[in-house]
Amino acid sequence: MRIAVYAGTFDPVTNGHLDVIHRSVRLFDKVIVAVARDNYKNTLFTLEERVDLIRAVLDGDDHVEIELFQGLLIDYCKKKKASTIIRGLRVVSDFEYEMQMALMNKKLHPDIETTFLMTDQKYSFLSSKIIKQVAQFGGCVKGLVPEEVSLALAKKFGIRQQD
Amino acid sequence: MRIAVYAGTFDPVTNGHLDVIHRSVRLFDKVIVAVARDNYKNTLFTLEERVDLIRAVLDGDDHVEIELFQGLLIDYCKKKKASTIIRGLRVVSDFEYEMQMALMNKKLHPDIETTFLMTDQKYSFLSSKIIKQVAQFGGCVKGLVPEEVSLALAKKFGIRQQD
Amino acid sequence: MRIAVYAGTFDPVTNGHLDVIHRSVRLFDKVIVAVARDNYKNTLFTLEERVDLIRAVLDGDDHVEIELFQGLLIDYCKKKKASTIIRGLRVVSDFEYEMQMALMNKKLHPDIETTFLMTDQKYSFLSSKIIKQVAQFGGCVKGLVPEEVSLALAKKFGIRQQD
Amino acid sequence: MRIAVYAGTFDPVTNGHLDVIHRSVRLFDKVIVAVARDNYKNTLFTLEERVDLIRAVLDGDDHVEIELFQGLLIDYCKKKKASTIIRGLRVVSDFEYEMQMALMNKKLHPDIETTFLMTDQKYSFLSSKIIKQVAQFGGCVKGLVPEEVSLALAKKFGIRQQD
Amino acid sequence: MRIAVYAGTFDPVTNGHLDVIHRSVRLFDKVIVAVARDNYKNTLFTLEERVDLIRAVLDGDDHVEIELFQGLLIDYCKKKKASTIIRGLRVVSDFEYEMQMALMNKKLHPDIETTFLMTDQKYSFLSSKIIKQVAQFGGCVKGLVPEEVSLALAKKFGIRQQD
Amino acid sequence: MRIAVYAGTFDPVTNGHLDVIHRSVRLFDKVIVAVARDNYKNTLFTLEERVDLIRAVLDGDDHVEIELFQGLLIDYCKKKKASTIIRGLRVVSDFEYEMQMALMNKKLHPDIETTFLMTDQKYSFLSSKIIKQVAQFGGCVKGLVPEEVSLALAKKFGIRQQD
Repeated sequence: MRIAVYAGTFDPVTNGHLDVIHRSVRLFDKVIVAVARDNYKNTLFTLEERVDLIRAVLDGDDHVEIELFQGLLIDYCKKKKASTIIRGLRVVSDFEYEMQMALMNKKLHPDIETTFLMTDQKYSFLSSKIIKQVAQFGGCVKGLVPEEVSLALAKKFGIRQQD
Repeated sequence: MRIAVYAGTFDPVTNGHLDVIHRSVRLFDKVIVAVARDNYKNTLFTLEERVDLIRAVLDGDDHVEIELFQGLLIDYCKKKKASTIIRGLRVVSDFEYEMQMALMNKKLHPDIETTFLMTDQKYSFLSSKIIKQVAQFGGCVKGLVPEEVSLALAKKFGIRQQD
Repeated sequence: MRIAVYAGTFDPVTNGHLDVIHRSVRLFDKVIVAVARDNYKNTLFTLEERVDLIRAVLDGDDHVEIELFQGLLIDYCKKKKASTIIRGLRVVSDFEYEMQMALMNKKLHPDIETTFLMTDQKYSFLSSKIIKQVAQFGGCVKGLVPEEVSLALAKKFGIRQQD
Repeated sequence: MRIAVYAGTFDPVTNGHLDVIHRSVRLFDKVIVAVARDNYKNTLFTLEERVDLIRAVLDGDDHVEIELFQGLLIDYCKKKKASTIIRGLRVVSDFEYEMQMALMNKKLHPDIETTFLMTDQKYSFLSSKIIKQVAQFGGCVKGLVPEEVSLALAKKFGIRQQD
Repeated sequence: MRIAVYAGTFDPVTNGHLDVIHRSVRLFDKVIVAVARDNYKNTLFTLEERVDLIRAVLDGDDHVEIELFQGLLIDYCKKKKASTIIRGLRVVSDFEYEMQMALMNKKLHPDIETTFLMTDQKYSFLSSKIIKQVAQFGGCVKGLVPEEVSLALAKKFGIRQQD
Repeated sequence: MRIAVYAGTFDPVTNGHLDVIHRSVRLFDKVIVAVARDNYKNTLFTLEERVDLIRAVLDGDDHVEIELFQGLLIDYCKKKKASTIIRGLRVVSDFEYEMQMALMNKKLHPDIETTFLMTDQKYSFLSSKIIKQVAQFGGCVKGLVPEEVSLALAKKFGIRQQD
């Protein structure tokens, strides 16, 4: 059985993340969505909220497990007997960082791969950060995040949702 | 009448910004320079100072309006009946962010374009940030910012200006 | 009256090109689609065919003129009293070449701008070259080129069109 | 059973290609190495030679199949019931082309993924083209290509191999 | 005598930095390693610790001088009669910033060059930041930093070193 | 004595090339300008013409030697006892190829460095290719190439030079 780990802060989960997860499920036997506990201090949503939002949209898929993790991702993958880390292929800006992490991970545990998946074109420039920037001012993010996340953002920013 | 909006923090305005504004004036009937009220907390100059510096160098051009704005830029453009957002074409680093914002804006108000203008080559690597880094240690920034800004920087950093 | 020139080989015109043209029409008073006569020897379609395909899809729009040109684009723009050259904003690969041409054009006729427009996301990686590669083997390019072009490609490659 | 297709001209196969193949074997049940019959006219090695060199270094691995293909890669993948196309992750230059092909393939057969694998750092800037440029002048390419390829290059260029 | 200045925070020094220094020594008569006193507030190691670590690994090389500096690097270079600033060639992400600084420095003191050196491929994606991220969670960084730095990191993070 | 080699086709030499040469002279004891004999078949100028144009503008500088070379550049550098290859730092597009060549050269002769020099900003997007494209149609290239080259281009294209 081949296990893939898809890790992130998911603050909050977007349709781009979900697209990567659904594609991973078609390529690997099990996909662990690993929510980072402590990487970024200033998340908009608490760890519990971030996990709950993912569970709300992914629950019921037997091939997906949602877990928390802390520490070094590659150590976590080793412990989980994962064959690969999954990354969504972003266009340009974080490329050097992606290479750095992938090469460092390869050095630490050479038997675990890093796999980049093409996302659907309509999500190729989507990020949690821009979703938050737009939602903060009442901009409509429907179609870019699941309904549950759209509601959670509106609630968090204390604004009435646009119809 | 076609209106273009050129928005930013302008902390402080540079000759690169002015170059984009002058080019925009030749392409559109009115250019609104929209100074962001609250995007970045730690500006060197206050909002009032940033606006005053732009007014000092642009005053008298009937085709340019200088305004404050807050909230979502694209909503502001809609309210102002703008045809397009203007961006200066930067070389590499913020490209993904530019695409993200442009695509998000297109989703929010599809009838407003995003237009990137080539700046003069001598300003193509210029930014407010590097101006501040250099001015802070007394480096000469003449030719890169208007005289008024050069003086304001010297005053702000409490250093005597170089001749 | 502000005139914009959008030049290319258009071998063949794609929906991405059309998207740029339609956006240009909203920003400028007249858009000249300038079909290059002699830049690339090995075009799939003859100059006449390339122009005919554009006419077939754009005919009737009073703000658009379709013309042939040869020689230096910037000289042609000068003769046509254009305010700006229009370019569709491509993601990465031809960036240096775009900068080279834009800077050279600025040197030759400093009063003509180069304006880059964001295309619709679904066309951001589209090119005539990839259309031809796919059509050549009978791959379906509907939705990426106008119906007329789809038919012309099928005919050119002597294959029965897919339904 | 999940099948991955790794296609190319392999003119000639390098250690970078082999690295991608070995990694793919760990992630998928079968890897088809698909040698392009006719994409590039001016290959240094004939199709037969290119296939023979791959066979010479990969023979005996039950999880790898070496095949010829022509036409549209994505159609070939469909026929072979592949789950994904494999690409080695290159640093910068062909990025736009990669995105173009991957998005086009997704449009043609949405159920087949495109997966990019990190190669070993020491192969991240390696290409068949540079190997040929160096070998042509008698430069030593050992460690960058298999022994069989090194010999074939020396023979092809009619030079005595360096020790 | 031609003097080169290689400046940075060195928080901590890595094998990538050392590789650049050793290459510089072969090209110039004297290399000054200039440790920035105050650029980044939140360094992991104090200025004294950062200098000590560099001294520990470089001591005894007559062509290298280790110094502190503050203020504008280019002014410091002028004072030291340096012919050039040395930079390690990074792949993508900080490229615009590098160009900005190099061009600004050229404007401030046109007689001082900026020279970019290729580092060894195995260090091309290495940075102090990623070293700290990995060491923080007990990941092994041997081979990427000198032994002294490896020990200092383990001590700083209060973890027993891996063997 | 430290020798640097600056190689290319120089078809024709531009002010950008000259800028790199003048900078190199300040950093190294001798600079060999190595004109490639046979790399590109379809040069506009013959090898003799290309060398003559360089001699015409560089003659008299004792620190510069102009030579022809063929074969592998790195082997030529070895024979010439060069310490480094000089490259002008280009912005984006050929970056991967530059890395490939530099790494390959490092593998072939590890004791010879590759040094990238910042050129003057006004030449950062200049290339022989664009010069030829513009000159071919009678565009003015003064300020971008030496007077001798400007004349040679006009003569080559059989057009009367613009004043």
